[in-house]
Amino acid sequence: MIVEILCVGTEILLGNIVNTNAKFLSEELANLGLSVFFQTVVGDNPDRLESALDIALNRSDIVITTGGLGPTQDDLTKEIIAKAMGKKLVENKKAMEMLEERLRSFGREITKNNYKQAFLPDGAIPMYNNNGTAPGAIIESNGKTVIMMPGPPSEMTLMFKESVYPYLKRFSDDVIVSKTVKMIGIGESRMADMADDLIASENPTVAPYAKPFECQLRVTAKAKNEEEAKKLIDPMIDKINERFSEYIYSYNAEESLEEAVVKALVNKKLHISFAESCTGGMLVSAIINVPGSSSVINESFVTYANEAKEKRLGVSHDAIMKYGVVSEEVAKQMAEGVALVSGADIGVGITGIAGPDGGTDKKPVGLVYIGLYYKGNTVVKKLTRKGNRLTIRQGTVMAALDMIRRTIA
Amino acid sequence: MIVEILCVGTEILLGNIVNTNAKFLSEELANLGLSVFFQTVVGDNPDRLESALDIALNRSDIVITTGGLGPTQDDLTKEIIAKAMGKKLVENKKAMEMLEERLRSFGREITKNNYKQAFLPDGAIPMYNNNGTAPGAIIESNGKTVIMMPGPPSEMTLMFKESVYPYLKRFSDDVIVSKTVKMIGIGESRMADMADDLIASENPTVAPYAKPFECQLRVTAKAKNEEEAKKLIDPMIDKINERFSEYIYSYNAEESLEEAVVKALVNKKLHISFAESCTGGMLVSAIINVPGSSSVINESFVTYANEAKEKRLGVSHDAIMKYGVVSEEVAKQMAEGVALVSGADIGVGITGIAGPDGGTDKKPVGLVYIGLYYKGNTVVKKLTRKGNRLTIRQGTVMAALDMIRRTIA
Repeated sequence: MIVEILCVGTEILLGNIVNTNAKFLSEELANLGLSVFFQTVVGDNPDRLESALDIALNRSDIVITTGGLGPTQDDLTKEIIAKAMGKKLVENKKAMEMLEERLRSFGREITKNNYKQAFLPDGAIPMYNNNGTAPGAIIESNGKTVIMMPGPPSEMTLMFKESVYPYLKRFSDDVIVSKTVKMIGIGESRMADMADDLIASENPTVAPYAKPFECQLRVTAKAKNEEEAKKLIDPMIDKINERFSEYIYSYNAEESLEEAVVKALVNKKLHISFAESCTGGMLVSAIINVPGSSSVINESFVTYANEAKEKRLGVSHDAIMKYGVVSEEVAKQMAEGVALVSGADIGVGITGIAGPDGGTDKKPVGLVYIGLYYKGNTVVKKLTRKGNRLTIRQGTVMAALDMIRRTIA
Repeated sequence: MIVEILCVGTEILLGNIVNTNAKFLSEELANLGLSVFFQTVVGDNPDRLESALDIALNRSDIVITTGGLGPTQDDLTKEIIAKAMGKKLVENKKAMEMLEERLRSFGREITKNNYKQAFLPDGAIPMYNNNGTAPGAIIESNGKTVIMMPGPPSEMTLMFKESVYPYLKRFSDDVIVSKTVKMIGIGESRMADMADDLIASENPTVAPYAKPFECQLRVTAKAKNEEEAKKLIDPMIDKINERFSEYIYSYNAEESLEEAVVKALVNKKLHISFAESCTGGMLVSAIINVPGSSSVINESFVTYANEAKEKRLGVSHDAIMKYGVVSEEVAKQMAEGVALVSGADIGVGITGIAGPDGGTDKKPVGLVYIGLYYKGNTVVKKLTRKGNRLTIRQGTVMAALDMIRRTIA
């Protein structure tokens, strides 16, 4: 069963609003196991709406429309849907009752424009609008179905859940189940190369995604039920584990890298503290955004100036003079210093050049050293990142989180 | 000139992501005075992509595609665009140079999949991707144009600004000039109420926009040339200044609040330091993201645990016991303490409950105190914010920046 989403609204075409309706419907339809091949947005223009609807009905079984049902003069959707489905617009008794009940509950008078809302294509099944006035409708004709809903997201989503979902459930033979493997420390292109044969699989499918500084493989299975889907997914996850284990930080699509790191620190009962220079609080801020981080961090330092590094962390003045403040040695001393000063189990020191100024031939913008002290040892990682000030800082934070993750794994 | 937006991406059809690309492009095209009648989304499927492209080319002069240019095997967009435009895919020398330069700058090996990215339809104008690897391209044939861009928003938006906007500008008869007035400390609804009569203006138009924690009025004039446009815009800006002066922090759409604050601090030769608890480094990170911030900040503290507040800032143990750590008194002592310890002119202390846990009836989640010490005086502002942990923290950072801005104005 192929479903198409047709959103009616000039405000979407003008870029005034983001089309969250299409996202909501696509996600719900995917969960129902129904295929969505196209989303289309068209304005409140009769000819273009008619042509978009014709195209949609030609290539899909069910067309879900949103928008164009308000009580204003530019609401042509209903007339055009009726025409496309070979029906007349008639007053729908049930829709009129719904409308009167709604307006009474608001204490509003019924205007002539409101009555227009109770006109639906002949034989349509009206749908209650519990967050507004315009009723929705399901119109069936010649093996095709149009499901017409209002545009405001609060009205549309509630109507979908109450009326459309139960209607569509009958067309759904299969369930679609996805599992996402989240990775850090490997580029999308290399990940895709290494998973080449897996990405060719048909059921489950394996799809690569790039996110800023990390990437994912999503395994999606179509099956009769959840259990069958799991039987398809699990062996594929095993294969991914074999190849990518060192990069994987989560199997939960919603879990961020900082959440995974905080969880690991909590499990190991470890405290951490940071001494940040170029990242300037961005790393500690990521950690503190995770609920429960108070059990892994007491304090953290932004030591931006050289003197702050010396005074707060005990970095040696000589080392700064000899190696430069952006150096392996200073990163090491920052990591060790912050662990000592704060009494944390893990100390992380970051020093680098985020730009746009301050770079030299020997030490270009994007050069960053991350020191990590743990259990008497300090390792320092050198990064050479490209990008602007913000992305260099963000990439450094992700690299530091990855170092912590690997250290305590 | 009719432009159509065609977004390629199965992840949009599955409802995994909202189609912000379509919104961005629609808004930009409207500003250029170009008409957008349809937006379409199609998956990574050759036949359906081909049919969607045919439909789009049939009803529009210019088709802008996003997505489907990554280095993985499901990237068919280019081949299909070439076919639709009657061109062959050939290695594009300029695109290859761009790609090699980008990958070298990342220090990454060039994979076989990467080379595929340098193949473009014959005669295409390649476009640089300064936030990624996949080049974009402009393909002209038989009076139709396809403008092909990558899908990741950071790559697409930059490429649009750098390459597509200048290309499209020639199709726009009038110039459209906008000036944005950025405000903080006033809600969108109140701003819109106060600007009611201005928003009714036709040329220039005045459009209200809400951004997270701030809002804007954008004044847009359509005229024969820049000078004429300016004559329309300037008197409107004067009216806005009269009504909103205390809230306005910038007339530059690209300038962030933290940039405006750093600029003001630099001008006044003031040093600042922070003592953050619930915001946990987010405030200092915002300041340090501004180039040149090293001349206004030497160091900053995240004092998350009570002991850290006492030890680093000299907050009195008795005050914490008597008033609680989230209190006006502790915020005051944090602000004063951090100014003293760091030797900064301005000290800001933040203590609050970001949730989701830790709230009580008397001190609910979202309660935050911001202390600001300057020239011997300390003021404390109490916030009661709604939202989740992240938005409470972000809103607190914006409120703190606004306090700093007003203090040194």
